[in-house]
Amino acid sequence: MDLKSFFYPETVAVVGASSDQTKIGYQIVSNLKSGGYAGNIVPVNRNGNDILGLKTYRSITDYPEKVDLAILSVPAISTPAVAEECGKKGVFGIVVVASGFAETGNTKLEDDLSEVCRKYNMRLLGPNVVGIMNSSIKLNASFAPYLPYPGSIGMISQSGAMIIALDARTIRDKVGMSHLISIGNMADLGFSEIISFMNEDHNVSCISIYAEGIKNGRDFVETAKAIKKPIIMLKAGISKHGTIAAASHTGSLAGSHKVYDGALIQAGVIRAYNIDELFDLSLTLSLQPGMEGDNLIVVTNGGGIGVLATDSADQNGLPLNDPPDDLKAVIRKIIPEFGSLRNPIDMSAMASSEMYSKTISSVMDNEKVSAILAMYCEVANLSPMEAAKGIVSGVTNAKRNIPVVAAFVGGLESDKAIEYLIGQGIPSFGAPDIAVQCISALRLHLKLNDEICINPEQPDNLEKTSVSGTIKSYLERGFKSLNEIQSKEIFNMYGIQTNKTDLATSVEEAEKISVGMKFPLVLKIQSPDILHKSDVGGVILNIKDKTDLINGFNRIISNSSSLREKIQVDGVTVQEMVSGDLETVIGTINDPTFGPTVMFGLGGTEVQAINDVTFRMAPVCKTEALKMIDSAEIIYQAIRQIRKRLSYTN
Amino acid sequence: MDLKSFFYPETVAVVGASSDQTKIGYQIVSNLKSGGYAGNIVPVNRNGNDILGLKTYRSITDYPEKVDLAILSVPAISTPAVAEECGKKGVFGIVVVASGFAETGNTKLEDDLSEVCRKYNMRLLGPNVVGIMNSSIKLNASFAPYLPYPGSIGMISQSGAMIIALDARTIRDKVGMSHLISIGNMADLGFSEIISFMNEDHNVSCISIYAEGIKNGRDFVETAKAIKKPIIMLKAGISKHGTIAAASHTGSLAGSHKVYDGALIQAGVIRAYNIDELFDLSLTLSLQPGMEGDNLIVVTNGGGIGVLATDSADQNGLPLNDPPDDLKAVIRKIIPEFGSLRNPIDMSAMASSEMYSKTISSVMDNEKVSAILAMYCEVANLSPMEAAKGIVSGVTNAKRNIPVVAAFVGGLESDKAIEYLIGQGIPSFGAPDIAVQCISALRLHLKLNDEICINPEQPDNLEKTSVSGTIKSYLERGFKSLNEIQSKEIFNMYGIQTNKTDLATSVEEAEKISVGMKFPLVLKIQSPDILHKSDVGGVILNIKDKTDLINGFNRIISNSSSLREKIQVDGVTVQEMVSGDLETVIGTINDPTFGPTVMFGLGGTEVQAINDVTFRMAPVCKTEALKMIDSAEIIYQAIRQIRKRLSYTN
Repeated sequence: MDLKSFFYPETVAVVGASSDQTKIGYQIVSNLKSGGYAGNIVPVNRNGNDILGLKTYRSITDYPEKVDLAILSVPAISTPAVAEECGKKGVFGIVVVASGFAETGNTKLEDDLSEVCRKYNMRLLGPNVVGIMNSSIKLNASFAPYLPYPGSIGMISQSGAMIIALDARTIRDKVGMSHLISIGNMADLGFSEIISFMNEDHNVSCISIYAEGIKNGRDFVETAKAIKKPIIMLKAGISKHGTIAAASHTGSLAGSHKVYDGALIQAGVIRAYNIDELFDLSLTLSLQPGMEGDNLIVVTNGGGIGVLATDSADQNGLPLNDPPDDLKAVIRKIIPEFGSLRNPIDMSAMASSEMYSKTISSVMDNEKVSAILAMYCEVANLSPMEAAKGIVSGVTNAKRNIPVVAAFVGGLESDKAIEYLIGQGIPSFGAPDIAVQCISALRLHLKLNDEICINPEQPDNLEKTSVSGTIKSYLERGFKSLNEIQSKEIFNMYGIQTNKTDLATSVEEAEKISVGMKFPLVLKIQSPDILHKSDVGGVILNIKDKTDLINGFNRIISNSSSLREKIQVDGVTVQEMVSGDLETVIGTINDPTFGPTVMFGLGGTEVQAINDVTFRMAPVCKTEALKMIDSAEIIYQAIRQIRKRLSYTN
Repeated sequence: MDLKSFFYPETVAVVGASSDQTKIGYQIVSNLKSGGYAGNIVPVNRNGNDILGLKTYRSITDYPEKVDLAILSVPAISTPAVAEECGKKGVFGIVVVASGFAETGNTKLEDDLSEVCRKYNMRLLGPNVVGIMNSSIKLNASFAPYLPYPGSIGMISQSGAMIIALDARTIRDKVGMSHLISIGNMADLGFSEIISFMNEDHNVSCISIYAEGIKNGRDFVETAKAIKKPIIMLKAGISKHGTIAAASHTGSLAGSHKVYDGALIQAGVIRAYNIDELFDLSLTLSLQPGMEGDNLIVVTNGGGIGVLATDSADQNGLPLNDPPDDLKAVIRKIIPEFGSLRNPIDMSAMASSEMYSKTISSVMDNEKVSAILAMYCEVANLSPMEAAKGIVSGVTNAKRNIPVVAAFVGGLESDKAIEYLIGQGIPSFGAPDIAVQCISALRLHLKLNDEICINPEQPDNLEKTSVSGTIKSYLERGFKSLNEIQSKEIFNMYGIQTNKTDLATSVEEAEKISVGMKFPLVLKIQSPDILHKSDVGGVILNIKDKTDLINGFNRIISNSSSLREKIQVDGVTVQEMVSGDLETVIGTINDPTFGPTVMFGLGGTEVQAINDVTFRMAPVCKTEALKMIDSAEIIYQAIRQIRKRLSYTN
């Protein structure tokens, strides 16, 4: 745990501490104190007057002992100088609260600050952050007024403005966090290093992230791949307008959300799509183990909420199957005759606390069950708290440990029962569909982790050296992009087959080339000045014989010479015409966030409207490639079927 | 208001009233009293001992004055006899609490009960209900322990078990209801009559329904069409397993959810897909007017929640456009220089209560704005309540009345502000995406109402009489289904063109028929015993000439005679082969819930996997038909594009 001194400091200095209660420099000292932090708090202030009864130093260098962490609550412009002092003192890391750096265009100041930190090998969080909170050691080194509700979620937020809101919500929802970290501009510490730290921290069981734009996507994905703890991310800016808004808000590069979608699947990250989901999924994954297998059993005291859970299970890919016969036999003895032994198991409105307990432990003890959802709908004859106690007793008595989630539909009394259940380690929610979605995330977590690809297999016989040599030589010869023949040459070096293609500069050459080819052929103009060949009459399909070939060649040349602008024509390519089952497109882009990225989808300019493309960060391993193809499957199948019908009726 | 005596009774009798606190007959009397009902409460009990200080009668007929409503808390088996007494007394309506009727298979008892009610022209709610609640007159005629939070939502629940849970939730969420009605088995009063009543009731501004299966769908749709108040429905049982669960739970016919989807669009009903949505949408539509136009402006104090709202607006079909220039000019003077004048308008973390007020009234007063979303993210320098007061002040000062919704992201203090805002008539939520979804429902409400089709235009020259005469004659001649030629005859009577088709019983006849036709032709076997003609070699496409025709005819006859089972062969149809752009299917089913229903979608057995079909209750008017076609558009466009490319490359 490299960053232990940063997130578990023994001594924290606040540089720019103030006795003026309206100042952030006061609030941070006050929060450290009132939060209950047991380490040393060292206020630093030019005038040296004690603050809140704490001995205050004029300079950090005056403090005689070691300082692990310094919170800099000084104006942006002063931060490099103050960092210099901290560096001299040998501080492990600093947190810079001030804004007015890269996020407002002042990259120079941020670079200067980073430079100082690098010089002293001192870690930097920020600038432009609210601070850090660690509830396990009651450290509130921030200007958010209180610590989050204690728990084991490690939360990182890229939006400083949302830190206080998230913090307040942990208390309202009893969603416990060990860390709440404002990550700011990420001049030094970024997502990757912090999640790595959290992976090693035994106080963290689930890593949760609110992100607007990741800085070094490739690094993040590689780090996340190695982490087996669940990682949940709410990525803001996933719509057309939202992407622009996120970019203008954080100044970060908000890449295409489709690239994010692919890369985060590769990383094994579970996505949340709003704040409620971020909290609900984090709570569940921080308290419960992953779900092995697909057999979810729902236990309820009401048919109505049972139907809602059933709908939701279908929609979440966990369709409810009837309980195994041996389980039915056991349950039959527990619930009333008019209850239901199907799935949901409906104990009816006559359900008692004891019935909950017995039913739940029986379900959990059956080896064929993968997870259990315990539901309660507020009724007159059993209070929510009694139901909750029955559930806890059932879970306690069970011999197997499988995921348990609860849903309590009702009012304030149900809320209290939910709070009690959460306190007992059972994630509980106010609606069946939310509970089901959380259970499906427990399943997804294991599935994603299973499919993570660590070392993509390399194809054999890869002539990498000759490829780069060839490309280099084209660059040296002044080519700005590869033409069709050059591209096919590269493909062939990788062992990817292409159709026979050659360049003819005269009709005679075209005839000669055609001798070794199988008709029909295709002719295409080759010119570095023409991008869209078809538009200028530069492509002729279905050349059936020699006469077609001669006429076609001459037509292309004449079309090109009638163009208004003068263009360079290298000649006409002659190639065998290919027919096949379906046109797909594969490409690669250099994504600003994730670097070299492979795209796959349906091909042809006409299908752009469908936009059925998917991305994965390169290199892509075989299982990932197969998933890319799968993701286009619905449209792909539709096209296959249409094509089949066409060939039948035409 | 026909049902006024039912839902606004002046005198309520409780038959089966009890002084035993564990009995429902006690609870109902107690609830009526403690709820604060100002009308007369008349307990009826065989022993005649006073209950809770109220004069109690041995029979309802002993009570000297008029009784509007009687709640029957007696065993199921006694209900017909007790109903008889109520009928004799001239009671307007009865509510039957007991279960053990049609829902458990005892339809006889339910029929007997209904029969008595019909005889006395007495209305019946139930059986198998919790009761009714009317918060506007403090009437709690149910065994749910308290009245819902007061408000203007008229709520009907088909699940009795969920009534108490929904009730408790109104108090927790401050979602106010005027009525909360348990509808039960609907032996008499059903959804249609109750929503009609609510439409006339000025205490109801939004009608909300939890439904598992509607009994008379056609009637419901026609009633809902005439209602201009918003109707919101959470329909449970919309997945494969959920449909089965709903059917087994209520004994109601749970029709295909795709038929529900179409019929509810026709009815102008807004759908909720979980309990939270049911409450959030109901709250919003009960408090705010419909949204005219698409121009939503978002005002925020935090960029992070702004991005989330932007994503959500895109996803809900209300993409955020920049404010008009005149509005920008006004806002520029209100918010800090580093705030954003785009949409969301970001007042920054420096937002004050006054800034909220001024910004909101300025936005609302701009004629180009259709609705406003006011957002607040918990910060240290402005409390949620101050922000809320700023919002209320802004809305109060505004000269225009457009929809206003708020989103407060934070903890318990934000919850209090949300409660305050709701009290001021501003629907408010804990997350941006929920607020945006609610605003889009305000838009959808007007759109759906605009598109409701009251009197579908009838096609001209419809030979209805000859159609039914023709079908009748085929039935009389023993046909169980129409064959291809008969079907095409019917199509032609409706003016729908079909390809030329005739039946040949010999090669010679086939040749003669082909003379008047345009090649290529198609031959198909005609036999009442063969459903899947292609499977038995009974279809030959692309008959190019006379030789093909003769060979084809003989081949079909020989294929059919080689079948193992003896079948009746009427002959071989000869028809012109049709080619076209796309195969679609149109059909009609007699849905158990909605009656005659039209289906439209992509045709051909091969595309069944896509299942891209949509339903509407017949008759379908032109705008509805166009919407059916639109709903298949994505796949339709995909196929068009693929086809285009195929014709290009093949």
